Amino acid sequence: MTQQSTLISTLVNGEFIDSVSVKDRGFQFGDGLFETIAVANNKPLLWDQHIQRLKKGCERLKLPLPDESQLHDEALSLFEEGEFKGIDKCVLKIIYTRGEGGRGYQLAKNTQPTRVLQCHVWPVYPDANKVNGIQIRLCESRLGHNPLLAGLKHLNRLEQIIARAEWQNYDDISEGIMLDIEGHVIEGTMSNVFFVQDNELITPGLEKCGINGVIRDLILTTQYDLNITHSVRNVDLQEFSCADEIFITNSLIGVWPVSQFKDVSYPVGPVTKHISQTIEKILQ
Amino acid sequence: MTQQSTLISTLVNGEFIDSVSVKDRGFQFGDGLFETIAVANNKPLLWDQHIQRLKKGCERLKLPLPDESQLHDEALSLFEEGEFKGIDKCVLKIIYTRGEGGRGYQLAKNTQPTRVLQCHVWPVYPDANKVNGIQIRLCESRLGHNPLLAGLKHLNRLEQIIARAEWQNYDDISEGIMLDIEGHVIEGTMSNVFFVQDNELITPGLEKCGINGVIRDLILTTQYDLNITHSVRNVDLQEFSCADEIFITNSLIGVWPVSQFKDVSYPVGPVTKHISQTIEKILQ
Repeated sequence: MTQQSTLISTLVNGEFIDSVSVKDRGFQFGDGLFETIAVANNKPLLWDQHIQRLKKGCERLKLPLPDESQLHDEALSLFEEGEFKGIDKCVLKIIYTRGEGGRGYQLAKNTQPTRVLQCHVWPVYPDANKVNGIQIRLCESRLGHNPLLAGLKHLNRLEQIIARAEWQNYDDISEGIMLDIEGHVIEGTMSNVFFVQDNELITPGLEKCGINGVIRDLILTTQYDLNITHSVRNVDLQEFSCADEIFITNSLIGVWPVSQFKDVSYPVGPVTKHISQTIEKILQ
Repeated sequence: MTQQSTLISTLVNGEFIDSVSVKDRGFQFGDGLFETIAVANNKPLLWDQHIQRLKKGCERLKLPLPDESQLHDEALSLFEEGEFKGIDKCVLKIIYTRGEGGRGYQLAKNTQPTRVLQCHVWPVYPDANKVNGIQIRLCESRLGHNPLLAGLKHLNRLEQIIARAEWQNYDDISEGIMLDIEGHVIEGTMSNVFFVQDNELITPGLEKCGINGVIRDLILTTQYDLNITHSVRNVDLQEFSCADEIFITNSLIGVWPVSQFKDVSYPVGPVTKHISQTIEKILQ
């Protein structure tokens, strides 16, 4: 069961407040980006990777680049001065929007981006998730095709919300797999997905939809002592269902093996174990 | 030239404030809907149609239905008590979100929707737009396909923002036409589009993308003294470019004829004139 994150400490543009203007384009249109970052002992993990992704997103959305050192300083002040002082692990969420604007879509001149840094309680995931694997389901809601926005962790997230609302028993089912409108497997509602088949490590391509996760990138660029090839390509549901091993990834969970999808059971196999351990070491 | 809407009067959940919690899912994920309504002499025009669309959107997004009379009362209090008292024409924007939530996509139990009502200055459009027509351009940014969300006026509007940022000289070019990823004509960045060809009035279908505008609906359901048929269907750019007449619609502009698209000039033709006048009468 996930612990409810009731304790939140928030900085908006450097101030300890927890509101934004209704004129903020993040609120008006979802005009911005976000990052969700694991924090251990006051250190935001994979900070460089998260900031690089945020910057890439800014370039695609034509947002001014964030001041990286300012974000880092503000993150530290949340851990050190806020209510999270002395807490080992927490979650840092950064929301970065285009700032305040007028009624319409047109960009106003000289707007200043809004930066929101939030510190959340670390979610209490069952240890079994990482060791024994999780049960996942297939979502009915499909991801649309949108090459303009594909890969970005932007604030337009209605698709994930609708898909995540399909099931409530989070204790049993930890994630839902989303297909795109053509029936290809893309990702989970809050995670990327990998599977192993015949010594090939496969994850779906994200050219048309999906979010390019930081852990996904890390897995694809890390060297392993494994005799496997990597593939990023189209994946259909039949192929996915017949995998030898399946696992999901995100910045908070790291790697979770999948033990059951639909009526099929999967082992926590050697490739999943090896990659999981390698990623764990990098995150320490 | 559009007048900058600097004067804004705002009610958030019935209070004259202009901020929302950063925890609001409208800000976190664009988890909500909006309506933009023309107001004349303290009367929100096509109120029933706007509320019906908002309610349909709520059903699609599984949001609690809004209290219509509460929204109406609050709208009136904005016109009668706020800074807009005594002003003949203004724009009412209603934003309706899922309310405050936690960090993730999962819906929290017992959340209360957030309702934001904003009164904006009426934009000063040139009279010539309605009489002589406007120049429009073709946007490079394409609309993705997303049947789950198609038609809704939801808060995930990055596509329109990116498309609207393609050009700045609003004085010359009043609107940009957006194609979908398959090259079909869909709509303008802030309007729906109609064209006339061989006594047929045609507007693109919105099953895969686009916003179903209130004026679009009104035009399609109104009887005219015209010997024309209506079609809602796929439209390719070649067909659109060869139209006898083109016009665009939204709740603020009503109907604007198109006088130029790319290198082609179009007349303000008899069908456009007749429909424009009919809609004007309904809006009085």
